[in-house]
Amino acid sequence: MHVNEQLLQWFNEHEGQFVSGQQLSQHLGISRTAVWKRIKKLEKQGYQFESAPKLGYRLIRKLLPLQVDWLKLQLQGNPFAREIHWLDRVDSTQTRAHQAYIAGATEGTVILAEQQHAGRGRFGREWHSPAGTGIYMSLILCPRIPLAQATHMTLLISVSLCRAIRKLTGANVTIKWPNDLLIKGYKISGILVDTIAEADQVKTMIAGIGISVNMDLEDFPEPLRAKATSLKIATGHNLSREQLIISFFKQFEELYAIYLTKGFAPIRHLWEALTSTLQSHVVVTTPQGQVAGLAEGITENGALRVRDQQGQVHTLYSGDLAWSP
Amino acid sequence: MHVNEQLLQWFNEHEGQFVSGQQLSQHLGISRTAVWKRIKKLEKQGYQFESAPKLGYRLIRKLLPLQVDWLKLQLQGNPFAREIHWLDRVDSTQTRAHQAYIAGATEGTVILAEQQHAGRGRFGREWHSPAGTGIYMSLILCPRIPLAQATHMTLLISVSLCRAIRKLTGANVTIKWPNDLLIKGYKISGILVDTIAEADQVKTMIAGIGISVNMDLEDFPEPLRAKATSLKIATGHNLSREQLIISFFKQFEELYAIYLTKGFAPIRHLWEALTSTLQSHVVVTTPQGQVAGLAEGITENGALRVRDQQGQVHTLYSGDLAWSP
Repeated sequence: MHVNEQLLQWFNEHEGQFVSGQQLSQHLGISRTAVWKRIKKLEKQGYQFESAPKLGYRLIRKLLPLQVDWLKLQLQGNPFAREIHWLDRVDSTQTRAHQAYIAGATEGTVILAEQQHAGRGRFGREWHSPAGTGIYMSLILCPRIPLAQATHMTLLISVSLCRAIRKLTGANVTIKWPNDLLIKGYKISGILVDTIAEADQVKTMIAGIGISVNMDLEDFPEPLRAKATSLKIATGHNLSREQLIISFFKQFEELYAIYLTKGFAPIRHLWEALTSTLQSHVVVTTPQGQVAGLAEGITENGALRVRDQQGQVHTLYSGDLAWSP
Repeated sequence: MHVNEQLLQWFNEHEGQFVSGQQLSQHLGISRTAVWKRIKKLEKQGYQFESAPKLGYRLIRKLLPLQVDWLKLQLQGNPFAREIHWLDRVDSTQTRAHQAYIAGATEGTVILAEQQHAGRGRFGREWHSPAGTGIYMSLILCPRIPLAQATHMTLLISVSLCRAIRKLTGANVTIKWPNDLLIKGYKISGILVDTIAEADQVKTMIAGIGISVNMDLEDFPEPLRAKATSLKIATGHNLSREQLIISFFKQFEELYAIYLTKGFAPIRHLWEALTSTLQSHVVVTTPQGQVAGLAEGITENGALRVRDQQGQVHTLYSGDLAWSP
């Protein structure tokens, strides 16, 4: 057993009690400084300890793993969650889903992890993924859509997730173009859809979804705190991660059916109703340079239309968006 | 050595001479019927034999492999042909390029084969690829373009190839939407671009190009002959495959630079000038059903606009096109 697990087991066996550094040091056969370092490390993973001089440490918050069996039961029949793979700690669910796809996994395969140590957002940016408090999930999808419409998927997922969160929490979650969800201007979720296409048809999409659910502010590393939030911080109470996952899949199944039968127009209307990006002044940094102006709308491909001061309209397919000061 | 190679070596050693079935049978240690079967098989691969009663067989057309060293020399400095891998017989260059990509190959990697035994077109359709007479080639490209514009690449390659062939042969080659080149209504080339995208940016494209160059009509299996052609059949003489490859890469480098600096508009104009699809009555079979009408133009995504009898305009992202009778 790994030292961290031995440490946690010891705390579990002494639930609610203080355990001295001395005891732990003897039990684990490591120095008291090493014990202290381990505790700090566990705290970074989302555990919380109370420490008191002379008394030692007491575990005050234990993280429950996702109740995967219950998830599977509730999602029975949902074509996008046919096969749920739960993992404890991974590099990134997106990497694992890519590997699963190469090994033959098909639509409906879901990779869920408690914790990621190399979670990533767009452009390979790090996505902070502490244990047990967030949702880190990747879906394998095989939509029969043309390559030219592949960009619809990020918007479809954003709308589904935004509706699921609003329904469960009542929080005023909004969509920020192109792929984030915000509460009061802070990011609570990022969506990243990778695409594999054969000729002019999409073959497979791998959709990564990260959601900050039950983190306290202290769960984020210092440099991230100023910009971080979670559903718990925003609403003041814990939210069942399982409920949120179930709710997302229900929304997604429903909206996807609408998309297949009625096209992108109804999804676009929902997106426009849920976004905080439109009718505001923005600066978008694209690979080709910066564009500043009024965000007027999105095209039928999900590109952002920005009208600059000279009245020229720019169609932006990709970029980082900030609001003008 | 494989029996076929022993057979070919024997013919090479007896260049211009007739070799009797009896001699071959003794030399190879197989029956005369087996010799005859081998000869038939080689004929299917593009070799030509003259056979005469009592005299036996004489090899009258030998296929020269691609002069890869010369190709490499001529393409020095071309960023899309930095590393040329020549293979004799493969399943499909496209499959090999995908494997090379997964193993770490980057932009400028080219896979060339003399012969494919599982060449494929769109929707996994077979692409007849006899030895030594065609060009079977896959390119690894890493264009920094948004996913929403991935469809441009097929058109960019079509235009490059069409111009290269016209320049070398003077033949009236035209582009058929979405991905074929035709001479007098017959297909001489197919283009198949696979896409791998991360979030809203294209990461890698693998472009497969098949060209029927020096086939005679007899090189095609009976069922394909009615619809088959080659540059040789169309123009009446052999064409250097190397020259054609070099010319394609030069065109592609030039047009790609224009695309990156000036966008899709100039490429679209070139495409429209070279296509035989526009201003004609077509029937397009799409995954969603058939659309018949006048092909009016292409959109800025390369989708075909077809106006039906009721005046409604359909935007088609994918499909099989046939001309109305």
